[in-house]
Amino acid sequence: MSDIQNRVLKGSFKLTRVGVRDVRKPVIVKRPGRDVTLVVTFDLFVDLPAELKGSHMSRNLEVLSRVIDESVREKVTSLEDLGAMMCKELLARHEYASCSEVLMSADYFLERGPGNGTTSLERYTLKASATAERGGTARKRIGVEVTGMTACPCAMEEVRNIRGVSSGDLLASITHNQRNVTTLSMEVPSDSTVEADALIGIVEGCLSSPTFEILKRADEAKVVIDAHSNPKFVEDVVRDVLGKILDKFSNLPDDVRVSVKSESYESIHKHNAYAERDTTMGELRL
Amino acid sequence: MSDIQNRVLKGSFKLTRVGVRDVRKPVIVKRPGRDVTLVVTFDLFVDLPAELKGSHMSRNLEVLSRVIDESVREKVTSLEDLGAMMCKELLARHEYASCSEVLMSADYFLERGPGNGTTSLERYTLKASATAERGGTARKRIGVEVTGMTACPCAMEEVRNIRGVSSGDLLASITHNQRNVTTLSMEVPSDSTVEADALIGIVEGCLSSPTFEILKRADEAKVVIDAHSNPKFVEDVVRDVLGKILDKFSNLPDDVRVSVKSESYESIHKHNAYAERDTTMGELRL
Amino acid sequence: MSDIQNRVLKGSFKLTRVGVRDVRKPVIVKRPGRDVTLVVTFDLFVDLPAELKGSHMSRNLEVLSRVIDESVREKVTSLEDLGAMMCKELLARHEYASCSEVLMSADYFLERGPGNGTTSLERYTLKASATAERGGTARKRIGVEVTGMTACPCAMEEVRNIRGVSSGDLLASITHNQRNVTTLSMEVPSDSTVEADALIGIVEGCLSSPTFEILKRADEAKVVIDAHSNPKFVEDVVRDVLGKILDKFSNLPDDVRVSVKSESYESIHKHNAYAERDTTMGELRL
Amino acid sequence: MSDIQNRVLKGSFKLTRVGVRDVRKPVIVKRPGRDVTLVVTFDLFVDLPAELKGSHMSRNLEVLSRVIDESVREKVTSLEDLGAMMCKELLARHEYASCSEVLMSADYFLERGPGNGTTSLERYTLKASATAERGGTARKRIGVEVTGMTACPCAMEEVRNIRGVSSGDLLASITHNQRNVTTLSMEVPSDSTVEADALIGIVEGCLSSPTFEILKRADEAKVVIDAHSNPKFVEDVVRDVLGKILDKFSNLPDDVRVSVKSESYESIHKHNAYAERDTTMGELRL
Repeated sequence: MSDIQNRVLKGSFKLTRVGVRDVRKPVIVKRPGRDVTLVVTFDLFVDLPAELKGSHMSRNLEVLSRVIDESVREKVTSLEDLGAMMCKELLARHEYASCSEVLMSADYFLERGPGNGTTSLERYTLKASATAERGGTARKRIGVEVTGMTACPCAMEEVRNIRGVSSGDLLASITHNQRNVTTLSMEVPSDSTVEADALIGIVEGCLSSPTFEILKRADEAKVVIDAHSNPKFVEDVVRDVLGKILDKFSNLPDDVRVSVKSESYESIHKHNAYAERDTTMGELRL
Repeated sequence: MSDIQNRVLKGSFKLTRVGVRDVRKPVIVKRPGRDVTLVVTFDLFVDLPAELKGSHMSRNLEVLSRVIDESVREKVTSLEDLGAMMCKELLARHEYASCSEVLMSADYFLERGPGNGTTSLERYTLKASATAERGGTARKRIGVEVTGMTACPCAMEEVRNIRGVSSGDLLASITHNQRNVTTLSMEVPSDSTVEADALIGIVEGCLSSPTFEILKRADEAKVVIDAHSNPKFVEDVVRDVLGKILDKFSNLPDDVRVSVKSESYESIHKHNAYAERDTTMGELRL
Repeated sequence: MSDIQNRVLKGSFKLTRVGVRDVRKPVIVKRPGRDVTLVVTFDLFVDLPAELKGSHMSRNLEVLSRVIDESVREKVTSLEDLGAMMCKELLARHEYASCSEVLMSADYFLERGPGNGTTSLERYTLKASATAERGGTARKRIGVEVTGMTACPCAMEEVRNIRGVSSGDLLASITHNQRNVTTLSMEVPSDSTVEADALIGIVEGCLSSPTFEILKRADEAKVVIDAHSNPKFVEDVVRDVLGKILDKFSNLPDDVRVSVKSESYESIHKHNAYAERDTTMGELRL
Repeated sequence: MSDIQNRVLKGSFKLTRVGVRDVRKPVIVKRPGRDVTLVVTFDLFVDLPAELKGSHMSRNLEVLSRVIDESVREKVTSLEDLGAMMCKELLARHEYASCSEVLMSADYFLERGPGNGTTSLERYTLKASATAERGGTARKRIGVEVTGMTACPCAMEEVRNIRGVSSGDLLASITHNQRNVTTLSMEVPSDSTVEADALIGIVEGCLSSPTFEILKRADEAKVVIDAHSNPKFVEDVVRDVLGKILDKFSNLPDDVRVSVKSESYESIHKHNAYAERDTTMGELRL
């Protein structure tokens, strides 16, 4: 008996993406010195030619299960490598498809502290993806979503103006500050490595201050003082991240895509402030 | 033909709530001087005795449609009154039920400004509900969810201590501040009126500062200065709201339920700070 | 005094999008024979050249307020027209920007029924947007998100095979069916009209069945029978919508963009099935 | 220097819950034969007496970190036991509090299959909690959220009536079916054990059918046939779970609380059907 999906259509349309969304699985990634268990949400797609009625979606789940099982034996070291393996396998199993795509998202934790010895596991989000075309090499992408703090430079200056205080006086620098979520995502060429931990470090270095779960009184004051010494618009955060990416990844070729987004959940507004740059290493070098 | 829902069961269990969730409808509420269109999300429930197989859920939607249609003619003046009408009608249509419940939530807008003449429509959430028992009077509840700003008193004092600044110096008062969402919900006795607008006013008066969508430079500085002149823990917000409720609604009887919740989306942490009091007017008067 | 945003930077990066997200406002749209109040969530962006430190975000809110106020007098007839007005005004107010963008989303209601005279207000989502480049005409887009029902053709056939039933026997056609959300979005050329209500009608005609809030017993049976007479993969839904778009909008030029996405919240799986085509009228005509 | 939180208030109000929400941490739970890594979202609260200005919220995070670290050495076998340890420690650290509470939620996976040998890791949610009063024993609770499938008995019968088919004919049994999420939560007396896996098994046995990620054609047909052989209202699901709880946990005392909620994301409606019972073992035995 033939599957209904295999029926041949006439005069129909090809589809850009067909597959499954919101599949969740635990995945073990081998990191230097430790194994990390991630609970990953996956979307898996292939394209579908105009003449085929349906995509065999159960194959996507079989690919997912198989590659995750293999990853335990083969010591997969990153989500984006896992995605690239899946993209290749999706094209092998969907013989009619010309391209495949895998999107991944997972909570991630790193031990961090405000510098006085106290640390805690801080929470981040990994956002990885991979795409492949039949006969080509998979393109991989790794991204991080980092929650931190921005202090507004504009309100700080305006308060000083009103009160007649010089800008050299840090303590006289009240302003609104707020929770900020910044996302940095980069293509990873097949012969290069881009570590998610390095991307997290870059973003945390570009906020007014990183944030921490456990802050004793003196640490809390330090974070507040650091943030007010370092006021940032969302525009500043995105540009500073772009500058550090240029420095850190000077070896990457021009066609590598880079995306940075920063969103501040403004304390003085009910809406959010947002800045974004979607670009390539080549454009950044101009 | 008899409905399958009417089948008689033996040895089964009564159910506390049976009904429909996440029904959305536009509703027009008549306010002094204006008609307000609200897009309301409804949950509607009745209980079910042990001996009946099923509740007739389509009746809940018929009640909803009918009461909303009537409300246009009958000039309903509040969501909680609409809910009370629905509770009564649910008991009329579900002859087997002993109690009914309606939950409602809607975006709501009021014209507000920082005091210099500029105003904008600020966004709030209304949370209303009603419950009824057969033979009794419906109990109604109105609540508001207000987004504003809190500035932390603890970090402010700690920074002053470290820097050797006196607490009289407002400008030397940097601290973390952040978006805060505070919810105030109260029972409305059948012979009393509690205006949502009054509840919003109470909550906004208990935050470090209310927030506004349109802030020119000088207004932004004013909001920042106001907030730093008025630092608040979430504990302070909840208690100040409780105090104002006691003052404002001194006429309400002891058994009127009051609930206040305040959550700060901490700028120096990735988690939230939270305080809550669930009580009655009588307990507050002790 | 000059704004800190106006500071000139050297060696910095231009930004693709700078602005505000998640602003909510009530908007009145004039439709034939009625005024519709929509509660709209807006994102508003402009780009920012490399040499400017910051974008004046409060101008975005001023544009929003002003255009919404004007819309009451000028009888704006659609969200996408409102967006185009805002895009133009954003470029006027942000003299440094070369392009602007407005995204809008709102609950929307139409009176619908299963064909027996009973109707209710069914809920949809409008998704509109507009973009503009300085010196050019705004490009507008209108989209609808429609919740309905799909019944799986594959499981239907497999059950028949196992039980030895012919495919002519509708009642012998059990299969899994489920809630489906399909989104259709189209560019609207400045000299053309695309009605959201027409797009909703197209999508509802391509599902296994539209769904309704109030269904008496006989209507419920009719919807179930209709859906099983009309089994659909998500692939089928997307392709059928594309076909109807080609027919209905044969007058639209080749460069008009069209996007269709269909997601089934599978009843036999914990994940979703998904199909998508992102294309132009010209590609569809090939 | 004394903390601002320690200030003594006059004429203020006690608070019911003060603490932190939405803290996320990886936790390792020791299960028979395996260690399970859970990514847990925590809320931690204590109460606050009227005369104290603030709660020391950083202590909540210290308790969380310490107890999670200890759990690695002490082989904690369940989330609710972890919560009980935290409740005890919260009271030790917040010397002014009279009660404490910990809420926990985490994705959870079990290997499952439709009975033909193929299995996959199916996704569930654990919902655990613990509360303690000073001088008393902690009360613990474990819950599971299970996604499965319900097929409607009412539409099935109505279709048969319309078509004149006898109810013995399974294949002539088309009806709407849909994704359902059912939550079962139980108190766990300190001298008893309630396994989350057992609760998941109970719920899956009370749905029209459990669901699976990987279903080959024959398996898909089997799940569809199973579901149609076993049509269920949400009312039926809740009552069947209550019946199985009574059987399975006949040893538990009368004051043990039990809560069951079932929500069907109706395929023929845009809203959900819902049933709930919140009760005790004693009431169920009446």
